[in-house]
Amino acid sequence: MDNKAFFKLTYGLFVAGTTWEDKQNACIINTATQATSEPGRMLATMMKTNYTTELIQKKGSLTISVLALDCPLNLIGNFGFSSGRDRNKFEEIPYALDEQGNPYLLEHIIARFSCKVEQTIDLGTHSLFVCAVTEAEVTGSGQPMTYASYRILKTGGSVPGLEKPETAAKATETAAAAVPEKPQKRWVCSVCHYVYDGEIPFEELPEDYVCPVCKRPKSVFVLEES
Amino acid sequence: MDNKAFFKLTYGLFVAGTTWEDKQNACIINTATQATSEPGRMLATMMKTNYTTELIQKKGSLTISVLALDCPLNLIGNFGFSSGRDRNKFEEIPYALDEQGNPYLLEHIIARFSCKVEQTIDLGTHSLFVCAVTEAEVTGSGQPMTYASYRILKTGGSVPGLEKPETAAKATETAAAAVPEKPQKRWVCSVCHYVYDGEIPFEELPEDYVCPVCKRPKSVFVLEES
Repeated sequence: MDNKAFFKLTYGLFVAGTTWEDKQNACIINTATQATSEPGRMLATMMKTNYTTELIQKKGSLTISVLALDCPLNLIGNFGFSSGRDRNKFEEIPYALDEQGNPYLLEHIIARFSCKVEQTIDLGTHSLFVCAVTEAEVTGSGQPMTYASYRILKTGGSVPGLEKPETAAKATETAAAAVPEKPQKRWVCSVCHYVYDGEIPFEELPEDYVCPVCKRPKSVFVLEES
Repeated sequence: MDNKAFFKLTYGLFVAGTTWEDKQNACIINTATQATSEPGRMLATMMKTNYTTELIQKKGSLTISVLALDCPLNLIGNFGFSSGRDRNKFEEIPYALDEQGNPYLLEHIIARFSCKVEQTIDLGTHSLFVCAVTEAEVTGSGQPMTYASYRILKTGGSVPGLEKPETAAKATETAAAAVPEKPQKRWVCSVCHYVYDGEIPFEELPEDYVCPVCKRPKSVFVLEES
């Protein structure tokens, strides 16, 4: 049994959201697929220990937002690398509520679904939600983010079909034409892509500093120079 | 409810195979995903009216072969656009049998899995197979075919990461340098990509001629000139 074979499967990348007792929460999943078209049904497999899974089980419904290929990586970091038990993941994210009162993203997605859980299949570590789709909307014309593209982008690679946004380098270049200045440096969390923007220089932060998004230690930050 | 939203989901492309009473059969699916890693489990959702689905239900096990991005389109046509009730889909396809005696492809795939059905969830038009993975092997280093890439390639488009094979045009060009000859023409089934290679000129075939692979009528063939 070669577990690397599982890496050859193809997945999209989605935000699964729900609301329980007035609290919105969401996480990243890669396992959303259509199951039937008449009636419209979707599947989503989610880790049981995940806080969002726990809330979906209580609520019985969820949204699935389809991330766009050009979505910022720190959006994925925001929903994917921390738990809603510790922080409000929607604090800085524009969202709306569907008819069930569940949150879906208003930016950086190309489609969104509202799902009512019909059956929950217990798969040990995971729950498989079989859902009736109650709302479906195309919200953008771009390509979907795939798990494969995300893995490439995360390590600084480029993905066909995705123009790189004007980089800090280019912006600096333009500025430099007017007033010569030092190249931009920034400390970025290598796990969730949070960009440190505090007033204290990063090097002077205490050793027990942790990423405010994913709670990983100071040592996972890398210096990006442009 | 906008059903176009479902087109924004991302899928791979796979051949699901099984054996029942010494008969090998297989079809194309796009719904294979990993469900859990401990133990290794996969999901596959398949149309009930599909002959392969019927045989998997009897046998209780299947293989899932992950198609390579550079697999020939007529391989997909062979497994995807006709029923094994009418013909032996493995007649011209190199394959091997796994420990359960189910067939998997030996060419044009990058990974393959052997799956034992643990649960079958009835979804009306479809059956959802929850499977324990009993064998998993990486068989190639290339990229996987995705449903999105297939849709582009099928209409003659090009896909990043996939070098076009030396085209008939190029071959003709080389030949023309030595002996001038007429450009190559070929009749291709627009549904399953079968290339007509009979001795009788295509135009002279009777009007009730049907594609030997997908059984569609003569009228779906198109003339490709290079």
